[in-house]
Amino acid sequence: MIQYPKGTIRPSQTPRPTKRMERTNHSGRGMFLENLLNQTNQVYLQKQLAVIHKKPTPIQIVNVDYPKRSATVIKEAYFRQPSTTDYNGVYNGAYIDFEAKETKNKTSFPLANIHQHQLEHMDNCVKQGGIVFFIIYFSSLQEYFLVEASYIIDYIKNNGDKSSIPLSYIKDNGYPIFLSIQGNLDYLPIVDELLLK
Amino acid sequence: MIQYPKGTIRPSQTPRPTKRMERTNHSGRGMFLENLLNQTNQVYLQKQLAVIHKKPTPIQIVNVDYPKRSATVIKEAYFRQPSTTDYNGVYNGAYIDFEAKETKNKTSFPLANIHQHQLEHMDNCVKQGGIVFFIIYFSSLQEYFLVEASYIIDYIKNNGDKSSIPLSYIKDNGYPIFLSIQGNLDYLPIVDELLLK
Repeated sequence: MIQYPKGTIRPSQTPRPTKRMERTNHSGRGMFLENLLNQTNQVYLQKQLAVIHKKPTPIQIVNVDYPKRSATVIKEAYFRQPSTTDYNGVYNGAYIDFEAKETKNKTSFPLANIHQHQLEHMDNCVKQGGIVFFIIYFSSLQEYFLVEASYIIDYIKNNGDKSSIPLSYIKDNGYPIFLSIQGNLDYLPIVDELLLK
Repeated sequence: MIQYPKGTIRPSQTPRPTKRMERTNHSGRGMFLENLLNQTNQVYLQKQLAVIHKKPTPIQIVNVDYPKRSATVIKEAYFRQPSTTDYNGVYNGAYIDFEAKETKNKTSFPLANIHQHQLEHMDNCVKQGGIVFFIIYFSSLQEYFLVEASYIIDYIKNNGDKSSIPLSYIKDNGYPIFLSIQGNLDYLPIVDELLLK
């Protein structure tokens, strides 16, 4: 029989996450930007403007239980480092690929959370003709930017200090994104500009 | 402390799946086609021909442990039904999206494993100008086919029997794929044909 440890939700058919899981992801990072983008992408989908989804978090499963009359239970698993980006999809025939990051910093964007293989993936997608970018949320400033991956990759290649990117560089090379009246982060108009380049 | 139940692998930094997990996925379906496609996509990536990845399996996490000196452990989680397809990526600027299925049947392809929302997702991607298809492996016949999603969607819409699609229909509307000498399932030449249409 399955044991339900204290603090977990007894699953019926579709278990819901605990409150902790809703507010932060496994790294404890804020999920405000992620929720905002998921909601925006949902609106794009409903309006048939674009099909863009967040990829599931990659997980290494080690031990699984197969109870007879209920859903398979994963009893032991670990988070894996993602080898690609969080979001991808299609918009007007174009391949869209991006990573979303938020920071509390006010003057620079820390690079600690971007992995080398993610940058390699983005570089590969650029070479295949994809539209590839970062969406960065400076939560203390409440400002959002879209920056093409190539500018971030260039900065990292050409600068001694690889720990962070100054906000000024992001402002100079990126596009501000604004919340719509409906509360969505409407980034497709910027993708239109990138497609025209 | 973490307890390591019998039959599981004691994780060092990156735990490996048990043999059972390597051979079958959570539904117990064969993973031959999946492994073959992952290997093929890896070759495409190395040769800079295309960037196509399998998405991680969507999992609903219910309970997580945060041990002090080691990796976060997921103690209870459940498989979720995927709302999109297994594979997507970019090839020569085009958005590629496909689902891979294998069957032991010799005369038809059973539709039981294709979910309605997956078909809707594929239909949405077609409308956005993506290249969307199924790769179907008839394991008893050792034959592989690539069929555009639109033909599968049409068949399901226009036929009373929605339980399976005859092999003859797949042969008439799809393309056979052949294993290369290197043992890869080289489907990009067929994508080239679809892009010319």
